[in-house]
Amino acid sequence: MTNLTLALDAMGGDFGPRVTVPAALQALVSNPQLKLLLVGNPETISPLLANKNAELLSRLQIIPAEYVVSNDVKPSQAIRSSHGTSMRIALNLVKSGEAQACVSAGNTGVLMGMAKLMLKSIEGIERPALMTVIPNLKQRKTVVLDLGANINCNSSMLVQFAIMGAVMAECVVGVSHPNVALLNIGEEESKGLDNIREAAMTLRNTTAINYIGYVEGNELLTGKADVLVCDGFAGNVTLKTMEGSIRVILSLVKGQQKKSSWLMKIFKKWLLKHVTKRFSHLNPDQYNGATLLGLRGIVIKSHGAANEQAFKAAIDQAVQAVEKQVPDRIAARLDAVLPKSE
Amino acid sequence: MTNLTLALDAMGGDFGPRVTVPAALQALVSNPQLKLLLVGNPETISPLLANKNAELLSRLQIIPAEYVVSNDVKPSQAIRSSHGTSMRIALNLVKSGEAQACVSAGNTGVLMGMAKLMLKSIEGIERPALMTVIPNLKQRKTVVLDLGANINCNSSMLVQFAIMGAVMAECVVGVSHPNVALLNIGEEESKGLDNIREAAMTLRNTTAINYIGYVEGNELLTGKADVLVCDGFAGNVTLKTMEGSIRVILSLVKGQQKKSSWLMKIFKKWLLKHVTKRFSHLNPDQYNGATLLGLRGIVIKSHGAANEQAFKAAIDQAVQAVEKQVPDRIAARLDAVLPKSE
Repeated sequence: MTNLTLALDAMGGDFGPRVTVPAALQALVSNPQLKLLLVGNPETISPLLANKNAELLSRLQIIPAEYVVSNDVKPSQAIRSSHGTSMRIALNLVKSGEAQACVSAGNTGVLMGMAKLMLKSIEGIERPALMTVIPNLKQRKTVVLDLGANINCNSSMLVQFAIMGAVMAECVVGVSHPNVALLNIGEEESKGLDNIREAAMTLRNTTAINYIGYVEGNELLTGKADVLVCDGFAGNVTLKTMEGSIRVILSLVKGQQKKSSWLMKIFKKWLLKHVTKRFSHLNPDQYNGATLLGLRGIVIKSHGAANEQAFKAAIDQAVQAVEKQVPDRIAARLDAVLPKSE
Repeated sequence: MTNLTLALDAMGGDFGPRVTVPAALQALVSNPQLKLLLVGNPETISPLLANKNAELLSRLQIIPAEYVVSNDVKPSQAIRSSHGTSMRIALNLVKSGEAQACVSAGNTGVLMGMAKLMLKSIEGIERPALMTVIPNLKQRKTVVLDLGANINCNSSMLVQFAIMGAVMAECVVGVSHPNVALLNIGEEESKGLDNIREAAMTLRNTTAINYIGYVEGNELLTGKADVLVCDGFAGNVTLKTMEGSIRVILSLVKGQQKKSSWLMKIFKKWLLKHVTKRFSHLNPDQYNGATLLGLRGIVIKSHGAANEQAFKAAIDQAVQAVEKQVPDRIAARLDAVLPKSE
């Protein structure tokens, strides 16, 4: 049995402990092996733990932190003055080995920069990437990266993302020989930006990667690719567009509840439950949590606006990354695939 | 009554005349003032017109074209060898004034390049942009550009897109003082690529534009922006992601029809009809048609895979652009807003 202790930045995100603490308790309920270190202000956190189950509380420890990284700061400046923040202390617990992973809903840029500084990149990785796993129509899952950590990517970064994504698809999603694709604006080889075309050339010649070519935004959810690689700008745009579109459609479905007889209402409610159940595997709340991939440690970034269920999903993702030993596997694969630099 | 004659590239797109001809007939039915010039192979087109209403046929003329621009060509090469193609002849009819607009489902890059060569850009426009109008939750419409004509955009191009988009929102969508936003990966001023931040600085100081800042992909359908400006890569990604997401959700809704009692089936069918009705204003088929904005003539690009209904929507969009005299209005606005270069 591996030690399974996670450090949670309890103060990060739009709602802080109001969301992170109940989510932490939920995670403890669903996983009896899990231990959590809640990093933050004990005065805010403690009241939220009052009258909770003693067994759960025995697996939870508050690690005091005086400060919190504000949401709207300049990363460079925030990193310099980050001593004593809940985010930094949480990352430090990973660095020291007291925790196996860190989860934070704080500012992405700061988390990224600080994690890179403190935990360092895996050898062969120029810049870590933000990755997430989204459900697809084939009832499998698609690994998408980068989601916004690197808005300018050269072709070798895209190739590194492809390798890391393939490892994730294999060891976390459980797909053998995952299809790896580059996000582009057309399927023809001549399409797109120079860095994408260059990365395509390299990937075509990388036998360890099952590269299938370009896919367009409309294939995000179809499952054509098990791994979808893009720069952080395009990745952020495609993921947020998908989330927004799904939310709009769900709101339209729910908006149907008015002006009907009571009998209709009952039937509608019944059907909506079923429709929503089918939608649920596309519900953004249930796949919240982006992994910072390429670090020598596990760091999960939750949406800032995550609710309890969504933050719990981010914790679950951290657990999975620990169990699958993601950083070690990526390092091993890079070692096998990338040209040696000596 | 303005003369309303459109040239259709009847051979373009994945399906050619099988789609374009029935769509043309539909458009003639719904608009008694409309005249259409069907450019293409008479032998393929004529059989599709057999036994049709004589009044409709009196407003339709076949203009013979020997060749078709293939879907998967290199634009530069295809443009050089484009003589005699249905696309070029259709554009020529606009240039000569015989038609007021051209509609094609052919290769985007070729259409763009050829249109620019033959019709020329409006003064003050570096590069024309592909624009479309999508429905939003506020029951209004959002103008989005560029959708893929220019994958590298400098800041002045983005500013020009913003001006053209604002004119479209005013004269075609009917919004006074439209909210203009730049697509970005965060709302803070410091976010995003250099060209976007530079364009933001210019737009903030352009009093004729109601610039509201950055919006993210999840706001595409919410109606926060009446005009959403982006480079062609991001625009293509956001639009295709939205289309793909909606198609996936609609397919899930439709997939709900199995395994129920007959009574349930009736109720489901009834509800689905209502849900689909609410969805319909987000149905990609109903807003097909991207305008090539910034040319001294009206050119509408239809999806290559457009079905009859979708191609008809592209024709409708051409009619509207003619009636609203879009190129003249853009030229007038640019003349008023942009610094003079003499």
